[in-house]
Amino acid sequence: MNRNIGRLRERLAPLGVSLRPHLKTAKSVEVARAVMTTPQGPATVSTLKEAQFFADAGINDIIYAVGIAPWKLAKVIELRKRGVNLAVVLDTIEQAQAVAAASRGAGDAIPALIEIDCDGHRSGVLPGDKDRLIAIGKALVEGGELRGVLTHAGGSYSARGAEALARCAEQERRSVVDAAAILREAGLPCPVVSVGSTPTAHNAADLSGVTEVRAGVFVFFDLVMAGVGICQIDDIAISVLATVIGHQREKGWILVDAGWMAMSQDRGTAKQEINQGYGVVCDSSGRPYDDLILADANQEHGIIMVRPGSQKSLPDLKIGDRVRILPNHACATGAQHRSYHVVHGASDIVEAEWQRFGGW
Amino acid sequence: MNRNIGRLRERLAPLGVSLRPHLKTAKSVEVARAVMTTPQGPATVSTLKEAQFFADAGINDIIYAVGIAPWKLAKVIELRKRGVNLAVVLDTIEQAQAVAAASRGAGDAIPALIEIDCDGHRSGVLPGDKDRLIAIGKALVEGGELRGVLTHAGGSYSARGAEALARCAEQERRSVVDAAAILREAGLPCPVVSVGSTPTAHNAADLSGVTEVRAGVFVFFDLVMAGVGICQIDDIAISVLATVIGHQREKGWILVDAGWMAMSQDRGTAKQEINQGYGVVCDSSGRPYDDLILADANQEHGIIMVRPGSQKSLPDLKIGDRVRILPNHACATGAQHRSYHVVHGASDIVEAEWQRFGGW
Repeated sequence: MNRNIGRLRERLAPLGVSLRPHLKTAKSVEVARAVMTTPQGPATVSTLKEAQFFADAGINDIIYAVGIAPWKLAKVIELRKRGVNLAVVLDTIEQAQAVAAASRGAGDAIPALIEIDCDGHRSGVLPGDKDRLIAIGKALVEGGELRGVLTHAGGSYSARGAEALARCAEQERRSVVDAAAILREAGLPCPVVSVGSTPTAHNAADLSGVTEVRAGVFVFFDLVMAGVGICQIDDIAISVLATVIGHQREKGWILVDAGWMAMSQDRGTAKQEINQGYGVVCDSSGRPYDDLILADANQEHGIIMVRPGSQKSLPDLKIGDRVRILPNHACATGAQHRSYHVVHGASDIVEAEWQRFGGW
Repeated sequence: MNRNIGRLRERLAPLGVSLRPHLKTAKSVEVARAVMTTPQGPATVSTLKEAQFFADAGINDIIYAVGIAPWKLAKVIELRKRGVNLAVVLDTIEQAQAVAAASRGAGDAIPALIEIDCDGHRSGVLPGDKDRLIAIGKALVEGGELRGVLTHAGGSYSARGAEALARCAEQERRSVVDAAAILREAGLPCPVVSVGSTPTAHNAADLSGVTEVRAGVFVFFDLVMAGVGICQIDDIAISVLATVIGHQREKGWILVDAGWMAMSQDRGTAKQEINQGYGVVCDSSGRPYDDLILADANQEHGIIMVRPGSQKSLPDLKIGDRVRILPNHACATGAQHRSYHVVHGASDIVEAEWQRFGGW
């Protein structure tokens, strides 16, 4: 984990941008403190529960990066009154009007970033939709604060190779830089120009005009990121410790007590070149067995098999033996657990237990 | 929920079996008390954390229905010392020897059920594998207690229609009744003959020789169970309340603040006749919109669309409006939440909040 954090920091430093890590991956104060530039932030969150939880831990520079619903503004104002520089995200005039009205009502200009749709992935204004951008900006400044523009290159998760990822990164950069130019030309402020996804953060060649990068999963990495080509299997800093509870020898199955409840049902590698099932199986020190995957999962049962087509044989794992399973998606697997057991490298000595929170 | 519980009770009463509900679906003391025959049980659990949690709530007749690992026996003994009639499950001689040895060490005959593989779904001894069954039984009684046999017709989840499900139920019944006969013929005890899955529990025509039925998801039901034909959409007693946070009108998308973190990534209906995406979208009182599904999901973003091929149009949902989303799999969606907000029928008044626990 520390190596992964250092790697992204070194990568971003010469590009002249700050890092506003997304804390939704780990949802842990200890991980947040390791990954942020200062103990107070900046940070990105995906729910207001996260904003509150991290505010309680002293983090006071936060973007809530999921489109704001008007009824949530009361909570935003409450957190801002506690001294948290909490900004919201929106992509419609209705939301901008709601933020402006709530700001006037509270006597507090709530900062908002306009979300830009850089790749058709989900929400956001198209970067060239000048009229809508300006209308949102104008509605916002009637009481609220136009803090800037923000985008997320969600499409980069399905790109492959450094060249394709660098193109995603440039498209992500250009979308917000263009949108910022439109706002500024219309006489509107746009101090923050925010991009972010782990694949683009690790492949952007130029971030001119961008002020900050948000990224989350780089802290742990996972099999999907390895499949995208952003990390090696050995960089993955999160795994599930499981125990062998049975065999179906005729079928080539080893049964373990980690099913989808422990791994999540994320099957992100199913669409990649190498389908890793529900995870890659390692020995208890974290060294992967050749071609061994968690091929299927029920709630609390996992079925370990040799990857289809492989000539490798099953390792001699006995009932009670432990294995570590690397997950497809760190955010999803983390969410299935209430805490992290912290080990150094291949050691199995638990040096700390870091609590994780959930809910909304 | 109460109607679903009543329905299974009425169904099982004339079949002369007791109900040992699986508490893994809800992981809630309040739901457990509603679904069990008595406040003390009997009950089924999928982790020792559940066993401990429910023991703390006064439940004292529990089967831990996932194959036992030897190192977990210390915890089993600890719970049994507290007065919990906790039984374990196993399917190998090694496990039986470990249970027998631990029983001798603790001066407490730990009860164990031999798991039978009725349909090749995951773990268990084949019902006709006489030698292995008897060898396990004999190893067990050298200190431990042979409580009986147990199976789970996991394959019934992919069957369709009452006739096919009745055949699954009969295959499930026959597998344990046959295994019990083999053990008894060998002079071994087999007082408990346990079957269970929601689809077979609702379709078994005859349960002769069976002493108890385990079932879990019947308490809430879900879209997968509706697809199997066990319930109607209107029986589903669990939903996720979400808020509209945006639109991509050209694409026919409505964005909500419920993604896979709220719904889980269970896509169980993808293999069924009607693919429900990540869930069926209802108005805030729980009435489904025509052909409206949560078609895609990111961590905290959901994309609502009209079902592919449908001629229906999107309902006029505005930013801030709320919808309820029915899940594919109640066990998986419940696991994403820390509590249940309890409402009566179509009311939106929260009458209680029931805590849910997780972890291992």
